[in-house]
Amino acid sequence: MVTQYAVGVDLGGTNIVVAAMTLDGSKLFGLQSAPTLAAEGADAVIARLARMVNETIDATMQETGASRDAFIGVGVGAPGTVDRATGRVLKAPNLDWHNRELAHPMSQLTGLPVQIDNDANCATYGEWWLGAARGGVNVIGVTIGTGVGGGIIVDRKVYHGSSDAAGEIGHTTIDLNGRRCGCGNYGCLEAYASGSAIAGRAREALTNDESSMLRTMVDGDLTRITAAVVYEAAGQGDAVALEIVRDTARVLGAGLANLLNIFNPDVVVIAGGVTQAGDALFEPLRKEVRRRAFKSVSERCHIVPGTLPGTAGVVGAVAAFIAQSTGHPPA
Amino acid sequence: MVTQYAVGVDLGGTNIVVAAMTLDGSKLFGLQSAPTLAAEGADAVIARLARMVNETIDATMQETGASRDAFIGVGVGAPGTVDRATGRVLKAPNLDWHNRELAHPMSQLTGLPVQIDNDANCATYGEWWLGAARGGVNVIGVTIGTGVGGGIIVDRKVYHGSSDAAGEIGHTTIDLNGRRCGCGNYGCLEAYASGSAIAGRAREALTNDESSMLRTMVDGDLTRITAAVVYEAAGQGDAVALEIVRDTARVLGAGLANLLNIFNPDVVVIAGGVTQAGDALFEPLRKEVRRRAFKSVSERCHIVPGTLPGTAGVVGAVAAFIAQSTGHPPA
Repeated sequence: MVTQYAVGVDLGGTNIVVAAMTLDGSKLFGLQSAPTLAAEGADAVIARLARMVNETIDATMQETGASRDAFIGVGVGAPGTVDRATGRVLKAPNLDWHNRELAHPMSQLTGLPVQIDNDANCATYGEWWLGAARGGVNVIGVTIGTGVGGGIIVDRKVYHGSSDAAGEIGHTTIDLNGRRCGCGNYGCLEAYASGSAIAGRAREALTNDESSMLRTMVDGDLTRITAAVVYEAAGQGDAVALEIVRDTARVLGAGLANLLNIFNPDVVVIAGGVTQAGDALFEPLRKEVRRRAFKSVSERCHIVPGTLPGTAGVVGAVAAFIAQSTGHPPA
Repeated sequence: MVTQYAVGVDLGGTNIVVAAMTLDGSKLFGLQSAPTLAAEGADAVIARLARMVNETIDATMQETGASRDAFIGVGVGAPGTVDRATGRVLKAPNLDWHNRELAHPMSQLTGLPVQIDNDANCATYGEWWLGAARGGVNVIGVTIGTGVGGGIIVDRKVYHGSSDAAGEIGHTTIDLNGRRCGCGNYGCLEAYASGSAIAGRAREALTNDESSMLRTMVDGDLTRITAAVVYEAAGQGDAVALEIVRDTARVLGAGLANLLNIFNPDVVVIAGGVTQAGDALFEPLRKEVRRRAFKSVSERCHIVPGTLPGTAGVVGAVAAFIAQSTGHPPA
């Protein structure tokens, strides 16, 4: 039988990543990435996406000798809320897109069926298919970058909810009277555990501390502090950075314990920049979850860092395309 | 074709309820209830359950002229954690049962296949099958009595999680540094919204208030204050009681908003004693959820009081039996 391929697209606010894969997930071809340049407008972005898909297909054909007929379609992970049935992006603040057709124009420009899904769902599905959550049945993915996103897998399929909006884990309240969140609410997980929240807390902490290496790492310019800088300093044993990472673990642990008590998953996979913090984060995090979740639930669940940084999104977009077009999870 | 029946059992810490139903859910027969008398021990309780099942079958046969062959099995909703595969109750503090066989001895005593499930799952499934959540696809049930229990329905089937422990909605943290909960944790929804928490807060409030009718309703004996008394006083416009109900709505609203943002359900059904509070609770509750959950998510979701008080558990036990034995949700 002729080998078939699907193309995955990870459309982010900053970068686009594209690759082709065999349907069994065993091989990846034509991986490329380019800046999104969202400011050029949606039509330009969509044209760029389609061009990249066509280039990836050409590169894969050259490398494998496959014919164009061997490519069955394209899965796209898009930031924000999507309507899978109509292939529209409903609201993507990162791109400044509102109720924007995506699947249809991409299908016209590539000549292939196109399915879209939310980017955090795709990243979670990618980690489930080929990454850290492989073999899981009920899985929760938490993506911690600028914000805190989430994806839910129930019985090996992405769970979308009743209007494709499930998985907004970052906007669950863990402190009723807590910090104001960017969403307008108070005490959301994202207000504590996102990359921006972590950087903000480091800046606050440094106003009362002259000795932390964080200060020298950014040459005294506190506006340059990012979550990545905090993780690096924590890795080198800086007390201020370690305190922030431990505090993040405590808050994130409460958020994850909620998810465990509600969902009773077998795997929670945490992806995004936060994985750079390594054991400094994961050890106190697992401890906090054990302290807060029911024993039978936390014993059943592995909490692991993602293992597909940079590619979970494209891999998951391929998996989502396969699942949506066949009705079955990919093998 | 001969009409078939299944028997439902709702095993509670205080009462047992049993009834037989036609498999299409259109008719209910032989409804009876009796005290659990858990202090007599598990063997005595199981013997009582089996006797009640047999009596209900006899009553149904008499009323309908059906033969005993027409009864295909028994579904039991049990409090606490269960292992459906082995038919055991793992931990039921209300009954003081630990790792106790239930399905097997009941099957021997009734000559019928027996399936067990958690009681809150059954109550939710009952409201989905024949009650307030009818027609829902993704549904969350919250049962507020002495404690706060939960059940989750995904795509018309009860979602059990990876070790039959999903749905512990009462033990999700909404206030990281909040009240201590009976589970040992801090800031759980149950520590604020359960019947016992509501009664406790009324007692606290009355220490500083001489004028509330709550005091006269219990003849000055504050130990007699229950959540039901608070709901009744709120219905009559008592200011202290109304304040407690509104405060409960605020906390419960935050907990429900979390569930909405995670699950994106089309129905949330709230059952148990708390429904007696009526609009005094449900109006501020819906408002708080709308304030906290994403708009697209809260617009998609109806929050409704249960409509099967007293029978949601048995009805759901029948539905769970049908779903577990056929692999399909009941019609």
